[in-house]
Amino acid sequence: MEQWYRNKITKGVEFSIKIDRNLTSVKSKIQQIDVLESSDFGRILVIDGELMHTEKDEFIYHEMMVHIPMAVNPDIKDVLVVGAGNGGIINELIKYPNIKSIKIVENDEALVTVIKKYMPKSTALGDPRVDLEIGDDMKYTRRVINQFDLIIIDIPDPFGPGENYFTKEYYGNCFTALRENGILITQQESCFYPHDAQAAQKAHKTGVRVFPISKVFQASIPTYASGHWLFGFNSKKFHPTRDLKAFVWNDLKIKTRYYNTKLHVGAFALPTYVEDVLKEVE
Amino acid sequence: MEQWYRNKITKGVEFSIKIDRNLTSVKSKIQQIDVLESSDFGRILVIDGELMHTEKDEFIYHEMMVHIPMAVNPDIKDVLVVGAGNGGIINELIKYPNIKSIKIVENDEALVTVIKKYMPKSTALGDPRVDLEIGDDMKYTRRVINQFDLIIIDIPDPFGPGENYFTKEYYGNCFTALRENGILITQQESCFYPHDAQAAQKAHKTGVRVFPISKVFQASIPTYASGHWLFGFNSKKFHPTRDLKAFVWNDLKIKTRYYNTKLHVGAFALPTYVEDVLKEVE
Repeated sequence: MEQWYRNKITKGVEFSIKIDRNLTSVKSKIQQIDVLESSDFGRILVIDGELMHTEKDEFIYHEMMVHIPMAVNPDIKDVLVVGAGNGGIINELIKYPNIKSIKIVENDEALVTVIKKYMPKSTALGDPRVDLEIGDDMKYTRRVINQFDLIIIDIPDPFGPGENYFTKEYYGNCFTALRENGILITQQESCFYPHDAQAAQKAHKTGVRVFPISKVFQASIPTYASGHWLFGFNSKKFHPTRDLKAFVWNDLKIKTRYYNTKLHVGAFALPTYVEDVLKEVE
Repeated sequence: MEQWYRNKITKGVEFSIKIDRNLTSVKSKIQQIDVLESSDFGRILVIDGELMHTEKDEFIYHEMMVHIPMAVNPDIKDVLVVGAGNGGIINELIKYPNIKSIKIVENDEALVTVIKKYMPKSTALGDPRVDLEIGDDMKYTRRVINQFDLIIIDIPDPFGPGENYFTKEYYGNCFTALRENGILITQQESCFYPHDAQAAQKAHKTGVRVFPISKVFQASIPTYASGHWLFGFNSKKFHPTRDLKAFVWNDLKIKTRYYNTKLHVGAFALPTYVEDVLKEVE
C-alpha cells in the first residue's frame, strides 16, 4: 500500500508527497520530529506534522536567507542563527571565509540529534567556527548587546509558539544584539492564502516598527504553501538593493543553485497583490 | 464524503483541491473538459484531467502573458491569441484602448461553449475588437504574413499534442505572421521537476533558434507544478527589459494584481538552476 505525506495547506488544499519509508519518529519534550524518505524530494524533515525542509528544495530557502544579507555586507564577521533547522543555513554561511563566528541557539536537543543522523547538510555544524548552544533562544537574544553583524531567525511558522518571534519585544532584542551595521533576516510566510497573509503582514509590521529599513523579499519554493515564500530584510543601515555589492560577491566565487546577484534585485520586486498586503502596515 | 481533485505533478507528488461540486463535464471531439467548483480556488477548468486555470490564481498567468509584451511595446495594435483558454488573456488585452484587433483561433468549439457558460473572464470575448474563429490554429498561423504585432500562444502543456506548438516550423510560422516589431509569448513549463525541465529547455531552444531575441521570464503560480512557472519572450526587435517603457505603461493606469513594472525586470532574473538548464541550449 502506498504511503503519502499530505501537507494540509488549508482545509481544502493539500500538497502531498509519496513516501518510501519513515526514517525516524521522535517525540521530544518540545515537539514531534519525523524524517521521511521520498523519491521526489529526498529526505523530508517534518515537525509537529508540518513540512519543514526537503532535501531537494531546501537550498532555495537557505541560500536566500544567507546570500541576500552577505551580498549586501560581505564584511559580516559574527552571525547568530536562531534555530538549527536542518543545518542548511550553516552550510551556506561556512562558504564565507570572512565569517569568524557562527553562534547557533537551538532549544530542542533532540532535533540536533535527529538532523545530525539524518540530514546531510548538518555536517556543516562541525565547522570550527560554529558554536552550538542548546537552550532558550529567547532568553539568549535578550541578554546579548552589540555582538552580531547578522541574525537569522530560522524557526517554524509564526503560528502558535512561533508567534513570540514576531513581536516588537523580540525584534527589539535582536536590534540590541546587532551592531550598528546589523541585519536581521526572518522567514515571513506568503500572501496567497488569507491565513498566511495575515502572518506575513504581522511580521512585516513588526519589522517596520523596529528597524529603520525593513523590506520583504521573495523566493519560489515548491514545497511551501503557494510556492511563493517571503522573507524579511530588517536592517539598521544597509539598503537591500542600493547597497548590494554585486562585484564583491561575484568575486567570492561562491557556488549557488538558486541565488545570484541579478536575482537578488528581482527578489525585492514583489507582485502587486503582495505589495498591497504589506503597504497596509508601512 | 469529501471529493478532491488530485492533480498529479509526478508519480509521487500531488497538488489537491477539495471540490464542492462538479459544474459540468463535457467530452468534445478533441478533449475532456470539466469545470469544478471549490472554496479555496473558485471555479477550476480541467482539460483531460489536467488543471488549466483556477479562478483564484489565473490572474497571475494571464497578466504576465499580456502586460510583459504590452509594456515593452505599448503601440501594439493587432494581436493573435492561439487558444481561447478561459478568456483570461482577452480580459487583460481589452484593457488597452490602443489595441485595435484581437484575433483568437481556437480549435475546440465545445471549450468556448463551456467557458462562456462557466468562466467569468470569458465575458471579455464579447469585446467588439475580438474576432473568434473556430478552426485549426496551426493552419491559420501558417497562412498569415506580416499581420500581427503580438502573438500569444495559450495552449496546454507541451506534452503530447501540445508538442507541435514548440517546433521550429511552428515558431517559424509565427515569425512570418508577425510584423517587424513582433513579439511571440509562450508558456514554457518550469525547471524544478526533471520531466518539466526537459520541456522548458526544448521550448527555449526553439525560441533561440527562430527569434533574434529569446528570453525567459517567471511568475509564481500556486496551482502550477512547482509554483514557479516560465514563459518565453521571443522578439524580432525589442529587448524585454532594456526596451521596457515603464513610464508609458504606468501612465496607462491599468489595474493589475500581479504585474508591475518593477516586477517586470525582476521576472527576467531567473534562479541559477533555471539559468543552467536554459544556457545549455543558448
